[in-house]
Amino acid sequence: MHGADIEKIKREYKIDGEILDFSSNINPVMPDMIGDLIVKSIDNMSCYPDIEYVDLRSSISDYLNGQRNESSCLKTNYEHIAVGNGATELIFLITRLIKGKLAIVSPTFGEYARAARINGLDFEEVSFEYLLENIYRYDNVFICNPNNPDGKIRDLENLISSTNNISSKENPINIFIDETFIEFTDNHKKYTALNYGCSNVFVFRALTKFFGMPGLRLGYLHSNDREFIKQLNQIKEPWTVNSFAEAVGRQVLKDDKFIEYTRKYYESERKYIYSKLSKIKEIEVFQTQTAFFLIRIKNSIKSSQLKEKMLLKYGILIRDASNFTGLDDTYIRIAIKDRQKNEKIIRALSDVFK
Amino acid sequence: MHGADIEKIKREYKIDGEILDFSSNINPVMPDMIGDLIVKSIDNMSCYPDIEYVDLRSSISDYLNGQRNESSCLKTNYEHIAVGNGATELIFLITRLIKGKLAIVSPTFGEYARAARINGLDFEEVSFEYLLENIYRYDNVFICNPNNPDGKIRDLENLISSTNNISSKENPINIFIDETFIEFTDNHKKYTALNYGCSNVFVFRALTKFFGMPGLRLGYLHSNDREFIKQLNQIKEPWTVNSFAEAVGRQVLKDDKFIEYTRKYYESERKYIYSKLSKIKEIEVFQTQTAFFLIRIKNSIKSSQLKEKMLLKYGILIRDASNFTGLDDTYIRIAIKDRQKNEKIIRALSDVFK
Repeated sequence: MHGADIEKIKREYKIDGEILDFSSNINPVMPDMIGDLIVKSIDNMSCYPDIEYVDLRSSISDYLNGQRNESSCLKTNYEHIAVGNGATELIFLITRLIKGKLAIVSPTFGEYARAARINGLDFEEVSFEYLLENIYRYDNVFICNPNNPDGKIRDLENLISSTNNISSKENPINIFIDETFIEFTDNHKKYTALNYGCSNVFVFRALTKFFGMPGLRLGYLHSNDREFIKQLNQIKEPWTVNSFAEAVGRQVLKDDKFIEYTRKYYESERKYIYSKLSKIKEIEVFQTQTAFFLIRIKNSIKSSQLKEKMLLKYGILIRDASNFTGLDDTYIRIAIKDRQKNEKIIRALSDVFK
Repeated sequence: MHGADIEKIKREYKIDGEILDFSSNINPVMPDMIGDLIVKSIDNMSCYPDIEYVDLRSSISDYLNGQRNESSCLKTNYEHIAVGNGATELIFLITRLIKGKLAIVSPTFGEYARAARINGLDFEEVSFEYLLENIYRYDNVFICNPNNPDGKIRDLENLISSTNNISSKENPINIFIDETFIEFTDNHKKYTALNYGCSNVFVFRALTKFFGMPGLRLGYLHSNDREFIKQLNQIKEPWTVNSFAEAVGRQVLKDDKFIEYTRKYYESERKYIYSKLSKIKEIEVFQTQTAFFLIRIKNSIKSSQLKEKMLLKYGILIRDASNFTGLDDTYIRIAIKDRQKNEKIIRALSDVFK
């Protein structure tokens, strides 16, 4: 079960009306240019997308060149980029390509473990602190930064430097960093692992969350090692990025106005929601640096009960976070939506716990 | 190398202008309703598609219930359908799921062998005649019907009955039939393997070819065995069908007018092109029952040379068919396009061989 399974929930609870979805961490706003871009791309559907997606990958590399710390002199081109059907396809491809033992820094997004399991990879779910001391035990690491479900940015400096003390070309330790939520973060150019030029540090992102388009299906992977991208493309299914995603991805990353607006909106909305929810004494709200809040329920109601109550009484879907490895049935996660909807969930939670 | 790699070809030959693409077997016409459907679906992009795609799968099963022989009393529902990012995703998922030895009836589409190779499956490329005598040697079969690149329909009656004489629940022999080109075929309801109710006969199709939308990315698999669909969904990446494909797939299969028009167009255009091309003595044109022609060059020019000549002199891209297992450098394949374009390739080929 993911967040975002809203149609499944509607079938399960036989709900016909609208549900306010706070279970999926999607920007409620899409860039203005989307409508025009899609309409202009309708005819493109009659052709296969470029099987090598060169122009799309070039646009992404241009974007990433503006995403680093200002002092960085690293430069990326399209050969450093692979594209996929959301970040998910890239996660599955990576778990097919890598060998040896994988550490998944937990609690976190469930698809890393699912992909590893499906592809027969030996993996362990470990805490960040444990990993820092025991990196030598592993060949590969998946880490989500900022992390889902707690919204925290991790400083990777120590992890990467201690990895690189023991990683070698013959026996590399690869670190795969899921940055699908990093663009919501203040000063994210300081935190992104794109600032590391090492061949064993990989970054993947998507248009899903920050650009508000989960239905478009576009994710991408950055590697300093062009050889890795080539290998990945060799085992990839062809044309997994559809022609709309190809067209939108080439334009939307240039929309600086949208990007700036979104970042400022989330910065202020995080403060607003935190200030409101932290007044509810029966819950503990964790500070977040991205697009959602992890919340711990202090009193006796369980996360699954709260989820059902919020759904049936208020028409609001929250994420029961009890199935994240390392969390329990006192945890829920809620997304940040537009102000009007945020007010509704604040009122509903205040009402439940009054 | 596939057909349809038109952007790659343009880069390779440094061509800026338009190329007439006869290398990909795509209907040049899309249903009229597409524009409206896409525009109406723009907002859907802001949500994840239904992770179980229940409505989409229901629309597909409704469509397939009208695709059988009239005497058939078989009925399909959404639980018999899996959807994927084109037929390609389904081919890759199937090769991940099946065990034992695979026969690929060749010459044929290259992705079956590529998917089998990537997924470490033991496979052999065999002729249909060989397979008929040796089906007991295999656990699984991939067969394309009508076949790419020769355009021939195969009567599967004998294959399926001799398979079922030795296939059992404990040791099944599974037959996977790629019917992505069958809707172009006259009387295809007679030939489709949807008429077989056995649990070891699987059919997959896509909207790519007949509905003219390779960029949309929607394929589907029909199984009489709901358990197989469940297993397949368990190893599937989530949300691989984008929200436009989800919306279009729910409507476009009901467009009987488009379907009827397309079938009639291809029926008459096959005859027209055959009558014209068969006058060129230096080539042998094979009769086709679908959307493309396989052609053998009798004189000394090689398929790769002809491809280059057609491209550079006439701006026409044909498929060099020499890399199909079992064919050689005397074979090319050309798609059927609209009448105006078909006239152009007829003129160009007549000119080359005059």
